[in-house]
Amino acid sequence: MQDARHADLVELRRDLHRHPEPAWREFYTTSRIVEECERIGVDELHVGPDALADGDRTAVPDDAELQQWYDRAREAGAREDLLDQLKGGYTGAVAVLERGEGPTVALRVDIDGLPREESESEEHTPVREGFRSETGAMHACGHDAHATIGIGVLETIAESDFQGTFKLLFQPGEEMVAGGKPMADSGHLDDVDYLLAVHVGLDHPTGEVVAGIDDFLAVHHFRADFSGAPAHAGNEPNAGDNAVQAMATAVQNLYAIPRHGDGPTRVNAGMVGGGSATNIVPEEAFIEGEVRGQSTELMEYTREHAERILDNAAAMHGCSLSLSTVGGAPSAESDGALVDIIHEITTGMASVETATERDALGGSEDATYLMREVQENGGLAAYVCVGTDHPGGHHTATFDVDEKSIAIGVNTLTDSIHEIAERRP
Amino acid sequence: MQDARHADLVELRRDLHRHPEPAWREFYTTSRIVEECERIGVDELHVGPDALADGDRTAVPDDAELQQWYDRAREAGAREDLLDQLKGGYTGAVAVLERGEGPTVALRVDIDGLPREESESEEHTPVREGFRSETGAMHACGHDAHATIGIGVLETIAESDFQGTFKLLFQPGEEMVAGGKPMADSGHLDDVDYLLAVHVGLDHPTGEVVAGIDDFLAVHHFRADFSGAPAHAGNEPNAGDNAVQAMATAVQNLYAIPRHGDGPTRVNAGMVGGGSATNIVPEEAFIEGEVRGQSTELMEYTREHAERILDNAAAMHGCSLSLSTVGGAPSAESDGALVDIIHEITTGMASVETATERDALGGSEDATYLMREVQENGGLAAYVCVGTDHPGGHHTATFDVDEKSIAIGVNTLTDSIHEIAERRP
Amino acid sequence: MQDARHADLVELRRDLHRHPEPAWREFYTTSRIVEECERIGVDELHVGPDALADGDRTAVPDDAELQQWYDRAREAGAREDLLDQLKGGYTGAVAVLERGEGPTVALRVDIDGLPREESESEEHTPVREGFRSETGAMHACGHDAHATIGIGVLETIAESDFQGTFKLLFQPGEEMVAGGKPMADSGHLDDVDYLLAVHVGLDHPTGEVVAGIDDFLAVHHFRADFSGAPAHAGNEPNAGDNAVQAMATAVQNLYAIPRHGDGPTRVNAGMVGGGSATNIVPEEAFIEGEVRGQSTELMEYTREHAERILDNAAAMHGCSLSLSTVGGAPSAESDGALVDIIHEITTGMASVETATERDALGGSEDATYLMREVQENGGLAAYVCVGTDHPGGHHTATFDVDEKSIAIGVNTLTDSIHEIAERRP
Amino acid sequence: MQDARHADLVELRRDLHRHPEPAWREFYTTSRIVEECERIGVDELHVGPDALADGDRTAVPDDAELQQWYDRAREAGAREDLLDQLKGGYTGAVAVLERGEGPTVALRVDIDGLPREESESEEHTPVREGFRSETGAMHACGHDAHATIGIGVLETIAESDFQGTFKLLFQPGEEMVAGGKPMADSGHLDDVDYLLAVHVGLDHPTGEVVAGIDDFLAVHHFRADFSGAPAHAGNEPNAGDNAVQAMATAVQNLYAIPRHGDGPTRVNAGMVGGGSATNIVPEEAFIEGEVRGQSTELMEYTREHAERILDNAAAMHGCSLSLSTVGGAPSAESDGALVDIIHEITTGMASVETATERDALGGSEDATYLMREVQENGGLAAYVCVGTDHPGGHHTATFDVDEKSIAIGVNTLTDSIHEIAERRP
Repeated sequence: MQDARHADLVELRRDLHRHPEPAWREFYTTSRIVEECERIGVDELHVGPDALADGDRTAVPDDAELQQWYDRAREAGAREDLLDQLKGGYTGAVAVLERGEGPTVALRVDIDGLPREESESEEHTPVREGFRSETGAMHACGHDAHATIGIGVLETIAESDFQGTFKLLFQPGEEMVAGGKPMADSGHLDDVDYLLAVHVGLDHPTGEVVAGIDDFLAVHHFRADFSGAPAHAGNEPNAGDNAVQAMATAVQNLYAIPRHGDGPTRVNAGMVGGGSATNIVPEEAFIEGEVRGQSTELMEYTREHAERILDNAAAMHGCSLSLSTVGGAPSAESDGALVDIIHEITTGMASVETATERDALGGSEDATYLMREVQENGGLAAYVCVGTDHPGGHHTATFDVDEKSIAIGVNTLTDSIHEIAERRP
Repeated sequence: MQDARHADLVELRRDLHRHPEPAWREFYTTSRIVEECERIGVDELHVGPDALADGDRTAVPDDAELQQWYDRAREAGAREDLLDQLKGGYTGAVAVLERGEGPTVALRVDIDGLPREESESEEHTPVREGFRSETGAMHACGHDAHATIGIGVLETIAESDFQGTFKLLFQPGEEMVAGGKPMADSGHLDDVDYLLAVHVGLDHPTGEVVAGIDDFLAVHHFRADFSGAPAHAGNEPNAGDNAVQAMATAVQNLYAIPRHGDGPTRVNAGMVGGGSATNIVPEEAFIEGEVRGQSTELMEYTREHAERILDNAAAMHGCSLSLSTVGGAPSAESDGALVDIIHEITTGMASVETATERDALGGSEDATYLMREVQENGGLAAYVCVGTDHPGGHHTATFDVDEKSIAIGVNTLTDSIHEIAERRP
Repeated sequence: MQDARHADLVELRRDLHRHPEPAWREFYTTSRIVEECERIGVDELHVGPDALADGDRTAVPDDAELQQWYDRAREAGAREDLLDQLKGGYTGAVAVLERGEGPTVALRVDIDGLPREESESEEHTPVREGFRSETGAMHACGHDAHATIGIGVLETIAESDFQGTFKLLFQPGEEMVAGGKPMADSGHLDDVDYLLAVHVGLDHPTGEVVAGIDDFLAVHHFRADFSGAPAHAGNEPNAGDNAVQAMATAVQNLYAIPRHGDGPTRVNAGMVGGGSATNIVPEEAFIEGEVRGQSTELMEYTREHAERILDNAAAMHGCSLSLSTVGGAPSAESDGALVDIIHEITTGMASVETATERDALGGSEDATYLMREVQENGGLAAYVCVGTDHPGGHHTATFDVDEKSIAIGVNTLTDSIHEIAERRP
Repeated sequence: MQDARHADLVELRRDLHRHPEPAWREFYTTSRIVEECERIGVDELHVGPDALADGDRTAVPDDAELQQWYDRAREAGAREDLLDQLKGGYTGAVAVLERGEGPTVALRVDIDGLPREESESEEHTPVREGFRSETGAMHACGHDAHATIGIGVLETIAESDFQGTFKLLFQPGEEMVAGGKPMADSGHLDDVDYLLAVHVGLDHPTGEVVAGIDDFLAVHHFRADFSGAPAHAGNEPNAGDNAVQAMATAVQNLYAIPRHGDGPTRVNAGMVGGGSATNIVPEEAFIEGEVRGQSTELMEYTREHAERILDNAAAMHGCSLSLSTVGGAPSAESDGALVDIIHEITTGMASVETATERDALGGSEDATYLMREVQENGGLAAYVCVGTDHPGGHHTATFDVDEKSIAIGVNTLTDSIHEIAERRP
């Protein structure tokens, strides 16, 4: 890659890094991406609601929250006409290049940030070099690099002799495992023969590329609201139905769901709360949590136990339970035939010091919805990891990406896409 | 009481009802009360820091929170010069009438609201008649009526031939049991011979007055912060120290502290929370709660157990614990000699249908700090209940006072204060 | 009382002390008592099933257990013909003296021991003087003294000029609150005008007599069996339904049943167990426990909460619940008119240093069934406490009675019975 | 195998099945086995204490329990002189055949039963054919077949032209993971070049043989005793330190130990109990449980968490904790070179329909102590599974073995041992 192109990509990545936006709030991010696609020139551009299936979205924030991020994006310089298309939190986009006969190859990148503060330490590069988050959220998982790699690939493919159709999917809401399903169901994947997804880091250093990531844990993300009855805690505690007791009982038992002999499962009561005042028996409480499993079956096993626990913890304390799905994703595997191509390409690349064939994720990702959609239609899918030195762990305040990996990612994916198109009989 | 005077008091009460302010945020309320005192004309007026002992305050909100309520009070029309005296959340006031030789009689009224929403039902009188809360908090325990009764008593005593000194104490922060101690230690009670405190309602109907309330539960209000270590809930849950598990373990065991053979105890984990994201093992969690006992000893028994539970629940999950005191109050009793006088007065009053001598509270009140201060100095104290029909229970969204009870309260207290002064040898 | 008579009673008490038998196993005890009644000579003697209502018994042990105690009693020297009448664990007896015109006065004493080991310390008098328990159970609540006092009263009344009918009720199974109801329903109380019950100790020293004990806590004694599914704990813990987890969840929440504003309540999971092997997910678990309340209503409040908790703890872990009643007793009060007579008698007695009119028990007793039966028929009842110095607390391994209190008890009750008969109009 | 020989082995197996004996109680079983060894004729026979290292035994029952099983064995017909050698619960034996130059090959079989009732259903073959357990315990894991296979192999080898030394180790106490370590440390393995261990079933059907079982979970088996203070549950529950509350808190949190990202872990509170009477605050409670891990490190991770939980659950409720080790076993792997030989042998055997090379156990076994002992001395070890149709799962009431698998086991092991001896350079 030319130095100038790399410099532009780094600048774009840093711009996105300064404006991290959580799920369905990616107003600035989407508008910025769409501007880039327009600059490059694409054949089709589906923005916001046109990139997503109707009615599938979960974890959508309320109107006040959406408006606040919308206004912020406008103040930060997002284009008004583009913002207009994203109203209601319909973020994300799909760009299409049509280059004649050939297979349809798609690349999926996710674009959202995490709802956490970024480090203020001078040792943290974004602080030192002036591109620390300005939104209160943080790109603590490298999705700024993902979107940037996507733009780099798009521009490179657009300038090349690629034969076929190339689709670039900018997916919102991955961190809430909420954006994968609406994009998988949008129809944009119906004709895709090959799907690549990409992630940076995952504890692999700069210079390593893993051709096929597997072992995505299936995940289900839920919200449980316990509703009881308040009472004066001094005069008549007996008159209350204590929602915090119900919640605490549920937490204790959720973590104690029996381990499964067939493979790993996970449970986390990641956010909890309840009560209104010290002297009032708590009327309301909630758990926002998740269950996971190595397979969808193992996740469902854990989910069934979790729901039984939540139901009975509520009933035990005279509370009612309202349970809703916030997000989720199935498990998936990278296809061998596609992994082989990518592994072969990376094995020969100068910038790739270590070409690894396979590794396990051990986490969850809603790219699996898109992978399964393509696989069910007879296509192939692979999830590629582009290593990057990251000083802090994923999701921590000091996470950062080594910007050299942006070029490696663009090269790996572009070369793989060309190879895929050429091999096609 | 004249109709015009009563109409003025009702108007004042409704004004206060529209502006409920929780502990140390009573900016509008204090300024409004001080204006009334100035209108009536008093000999001394101690506002804000002059009404409170230094260094005794607990449960003071942070600066941002204080500023927000301060600004709100100004926008609602509170007088700038008075607000100025209340900076830092030093709310409350003491008004003094000096009327020559005679005993020093004090009346304590509390003035704060509760941090809860008020009902929006059309059946709720404040909604129907247009004085529903405008602050998000609520006068759900009648302190608007208490402050109003105080003003009514002050004006009536001021116009009478009362001989002696009358002190009116407007105490902030009763709901957090945080304002009683600093006012008790302020020095204003040092020369008080007789202290009356008043509360409306407590399940007694309009027309009933209870001369002496007893059985105040001693209370201790605490904040426990659990601090663990975060981890990715999918990849390596083992790397975390789960603060929410610690909190849930503590909640389950707090409510299970053994009952005591010597008398009632109480525990409540009134507000809890923890965690930051569904897929992160929770690093932080908290419990804000209280323990109570019929006596200070029984409260201390429960507190010791609670602290042992909190310590070990934290340690069990590899978390550290930070424990702090938010507020508290001792138990207390109304003095028989003073109760007798009040009971005699109310027995003969036309507006009092039922004159009850004694009843038990079964709750807590930091008026007990003031009562004990006076009693330790050799004075007498009594806690009077003025019945009022209240459609919803205390601390609930539909609590309201029957405004007829304001006149009954003013008459009962004024006549009692005169009788006290006259009987003094 | 003559020294010889006292020596005989002490000998009897020590014999009973050596042979403590828990509920429905009082084979030796009953036969020994019946022998004494026969020696004294009574007009009617109702043994075993004749002393109890049909079909009312709870907490009856299984046949093997009964047989074991039956055999033990025979080996210890119980009379075969008497044992024969007690088969099936129908223990207890009613003795009747008919002495012409006059009221029917009854005395109820309980006769069972506790299922606990007795101290082996040389400082424990029964050890030092050779009458420590030989059965593995223990008279740790003084029922050996109660039965002995009953015999002493019977003999004294029999020799006196008492006019009326005297009934002596030897009640089994008090410690399990299981024997009171069947004896109350037996018909033997239908014509009783006055009922006395007696207990030694209760933290009152030798020389004190309390004429009327009140504040019996209503009690409900239950057995909860959780039944799940076993599984190999290593291979497939997921295949089990863990009854021990259900039990532990229940225990945690039972103790955390909200305290009641109207008065004391109690909960105790006094005996629990579960599981069969370390490497098997526990299939079975149980709780044998009790709830109490100052009134029957408060007990029922606690019982309802307990049952809701047990139900949902089982369901939460996929277990079924089998819940049964082991025993119980209502609350009751001693009648003032009867207490007055006894207090008057004891006030004048030389051996009574302190005549106390009333005291609260704060525990439970199924004498309340008998008291209520008599009261509902228009009769009067009182529960008398004969103080005794006891080195260890009730139900502990070092409990013992001061044998001087046996004479005091016999005198107090005999004199009271005479006085009752004489006063009768 | 000849029909007559097979009929004898079936008869032996059924005799052992009728007399299942748990750990260190295998008096009948050991004496019966030793009789068989004597009948066959061996060169060395080490019985009881001679088969075990001194001082290593855990989980030894108390004297009364030992005596009871000892007496039962004598009544069942065990030879007096043999029983004499087993006093104190030193059960198990080692038989040695010395057949000249050649390698030392050892076979380890375990001989203990499980402390659980056997099914009484007519569909259960041992019931129908009259060899159901007579001891109250049960051979629910096939160790009766293991011991029988051992005898079959011994006899076959004894009659053959085998060159070398053959050792047959009859190990007690596998179910408690208590017998492996003392036998591993006994010295009898010091010169062993090849060790085979055998297990029937494990969900493999009759006709399948697995040459090498791996993935033994490391296990630690513990006993936790909580000791608090009793109190009368009605009068003064506050005076107690409730050991059952401590136990329940521990159970809830033990099962909730965080899963580990590196591999499977297990926890089971397999047996629990506590308390003495419904109306006494429980003074004592216990948990007998286990933790496991795929590796010894993962087991230790879980053990550390478990111990932290037990400590703090006790302290939280004012109880002391006494924690002891009951048993345990490390993880281990079958050696490839040995597995290859066995797999080759079984691949060619007529009675083996399915020759499987490797499978994972997913459970624990203290054969791993013996395997590691041999491996550390430079020898090779393999754990062979001989499939058997079993109607109920291992450790359930309806477990049984298909007796055809006894012959398959004898043949497989005998042929493998010959092959091992022949290949030896």
